[in-house]
Amino acid sequence: MTSRTLINDLAAHADGTVSVSGWVEVVRDQKRVQFVILRDESGSAQLVNPVNDDTAETAASISALTHGSFIEVEGELKHDERVKLGGLEVKVGSLKVVSTAAELPIDSETGIDKRQDWRFIDLRSQRGRLMFKLQTTMLHAMRTYWVDNGFTEIHTPKLMASASESRAELFEVPYFDTTAYLAQSPQLFKQMAQAAGFGKVFEVGPAFRADPSFTSRHATEFTSIDAEISWIDSHEDVMKMHEELLHAAFAAVVEKHGDEIREVFEIDLQVPALPFPRISHAEVKQIVADRGHTIERTDGDLDPEAERQIAAHVKETQGHDFVFVTEFPSTVRPYYHMRDEADEAVTKSYDLIFGGVEISTGAQREHRVDVLEKQAVEKGLEPAELEEYLDFFRYGVPTHGGFGMGLARVMMLMLQQGTIRETTFLFRGPTRLQP
Amino acid sequence: MTSRTLINDLAAHADGTVSVSGWVEVVRDQKRVQFVILRDESGSAQLVNPVNDDTAETAASISALTHGSFIEVEGELKHDERVKLGGLEVKVGSLKVVSTAAELPIDSETGIDKRQDWRFIDLRSQRGRLMFKLQTTMLHAMRTYWVDNGFTEIHTPKLMASASESRAELFEVPYFDTTAYLAQSPQLFKQMAQAAGFGKVFEVGPAFRADPSFTSRHATEFTSIDAEISWIDSHEDVMKMHEELLHAAFAAVVEKHGDEIREVFEIDLQVPALPFPRISHAEVKQIVADRGHTIERTDGDLDPEAERQIAAHVKETQGHDFVFVTEFPSTVRPYYHMRDEADEAVTKSYDLIFGGVEISTGAQREHRVDVLEKQAVEKGLEPAELEEYLDFFRYGVPTHGGFGMGLARVMMLMLQQGTIRETTFLFRGPTRLQP
Repeated sequence: MTSRTLINDLAAHADGTVSVSGWVEVVRDQKRVQFVILRDESGSAQLVNPVNDDTAETAASISALTHGSFIEVEGELKHDERVKLGGLEVKVGSLKVVSTAAELPIDSETGIDKRQDWRFIDLRSQRGRLMFKLQTTMLHAMRTYWVDNGFTEIHTPKLMASASESRAELFEVPYFDTTAYLAQSPQLFKQMAQAAGFGKVFEVGPAFRADPSFTSRHATEFTSIDAEISWIDSHEDVMKMHEELLHAAFAAVVEKHGDEIREVFEIDLQVPALPFPRISHAEVKQIVADRGHTIERTDGDLDPEAERQIAAHVKETQGHDFVFVTEFPSTVRPYYHMRDEADEAVTKSYDLIFGGVEISTGAQREHRVDVLEKQAVEKGLEPAELEEYLDFFRYGVPTHGGFGMGLARVMMLMLQQGTIRETTFLFRGPTRLQP
Repeated sequence: MTSRTLINDLAAHADGTVSVSGWVEVVRDQKRVQFVILRDESGSAQLVNPVNDDTAETAASISALTHGSFIEVEGELKHDERVKLGGLEVKVGSLKVVSTAAELPIDSETGIDKRQDWRFIDLRSQRGRLMFKLQTTMLHAMRTYWVDNGFTEIHTPKLMASASESRAELFEVPYFDTTAYLAQSPQLFKQMAQAAGFGKVFEVGPAFRADPSFTSRHATEFTSIDAEISWIDSHEDVMKMHEELLHAAFAAVVEKHGDEIREVFEIDLQVPALPFPRISHAEVKQIVADRGHTIERTDGDLDPEAERQIAAHVKETQGHDFVFVTEFPSTVRPYYHMRDEADEAVTKSYDLIFGGVEISTGAQREHRVDVLEKQAVEKGLEPAELEEYLDFFRYGVPTHGGFGMGLARVMMLMLQQGTIRETTFLFRGPTRLQP
């Protein structure tokens, strides 16, 4: 057998014998000629078999093919402009069924919940393939940016002895004679790496929240993109790295997949211009109020509609899809966010909003252990419970800050999907542990 | 203040004003002149302060410096061959203490267990920094190999509804109204991605084993390097990818860090030649017996001494540090390893041994659902418990295979360390959940 050619590579391949393999998407079993649409990880092509005495055996095989079966085909490639699908077809020589599919339980009309039950079939679409190829490109561009800029990759433990932030929404794990907790974020350990003198670190890994909510943006397990850097003057240094990272990521995606994204998702994906707009939290509240939206929350934080409104304002006035909302009030930020030197009520922190939805929180961290302890007490925390964390700051630590960002959210907004369930390989929610 | 220069970049920097920052490794506080060895994420350099009336304030600051404190220094860089440390020094102009360290609880003589308690201080050494910079380089080279070869990155769930392989050594997690399990490997989901038509996939992520053992090679949480590929003829295709991957990884590490590895670990790291040696399991048993080692196990598997012996044999006869032991008996392999067409008693699988220790298991997987079910029953498993897994094979699936490999083990053997505790960022064991 000739070696396998990816379907996407057939266009550049000379007419002649080729081997292709993939799964059966469509069979058109006509009396005089049979057509099979074969899809593989790269694309789809038409196989053709004229029915006559010489091809009877192949014709019988094709007639028996079920949708979703995986086959290997050796045949004659012919470029032909009249063929709608890619301007080429493969005339079947030999056909081998590697695995026969039972009747598929879902089709393109099936709703999201049942599609998730059969995610491995759901993902066979061009759409499914594109999402994860694009994600691969995006993550590789991010890591390349980090590596080129002297970052160190870390793999922080997901099993922890204590809660990383709050006891709420924490998964407990019986652990030999004690109890462990699943990490809600790598926050503490990223900071520990700063005390270890790592300078700049990144991690892409799972995070866990025992969050009982059923929104389009929440999951109990999600892939978190995290970075943390030392020797910063303020959260501005973090934002600069953050926007450069996303710029590099989008540039790689647009270059490699822009045309296919246009074809499949009907989105003309743009590389966001640098720098991203920055608007302070106080200004945002004013702008949102001027646009007629009243924030119902009493804690001073923004609500989802305020995020949409400020995104719309930025889009209208600056044509940008991203906006950093900066200097959040101390009241709505955790104790470890550093406060402004000039105004205790304001933190050196930000949220990044993309397409009207918050995708990330970043901040300069408080590295002075006495201040950290004071702020923890103010927030009602017990310093005794934080001893291990506070130790990170007692033996020297540089100024530092960073962000965490949900991968599936970025993907959801980039591809204008209604829910992260579409952009997560295998979604996990309160009632979803399978497959 | 001038912008920060990494210490490693001082050598290429012209004499003149520079800003450096890092932590205090050594203070030599002499009467007429003070020296500070400053280390940052890139290296170390000597700061100097001649004591006189003009420098009295700086001299007082330096006298008060504690080991491990983080400082920012602006000063005059001067290249001077007489200075042992890098042939340069920085004459302190201004010095700012960012964070004062309390007395450090460990030093270079402290044993591994206590060093782990204070891992963030332990890792401040050149050794610690090099390990994780090297790891970053290695992983980036692997991912670049995969991306260049058309692989898709996946993030498989760590929360599962059922055991991935066996009920032994499984962490249970109370999960809303039910129980979840922490994934022992991404095995099932990597295979699911093959049924989804992904073709070739990789993942670098955590895996969990409730393993009560205290060996130098085991952890309850570890970073697993996983790949899985479709349309293979045998495990040979998997081994080819596996050895190419490691070749690319070692080549990148040797190129970027070879000199520093020689300096710090006194190891002359070599790029392993392609192809890696392959010896069948049956032959290995013969060779090991000929070398005088009797395997005490009754199940036909190798033992650690047999692994060391075959590695020694390969090193002596072929000068190679790696060896694939192939065609393990079916009796010691899981039901999902494909068996040899000609001999049911033999699997199309392998172990990869590096420096005398097994670092990976790979195999072609059984993709025929009827055979898979039969083999599961033979191994004493309940097909009913495997329904969800077996479903992956009922709707079409290509031939496929892959491997899983422990990152910390590869690092341990590459750097000839006695335990993975040295090469894991934060080790997790039965009695170790902190920091």
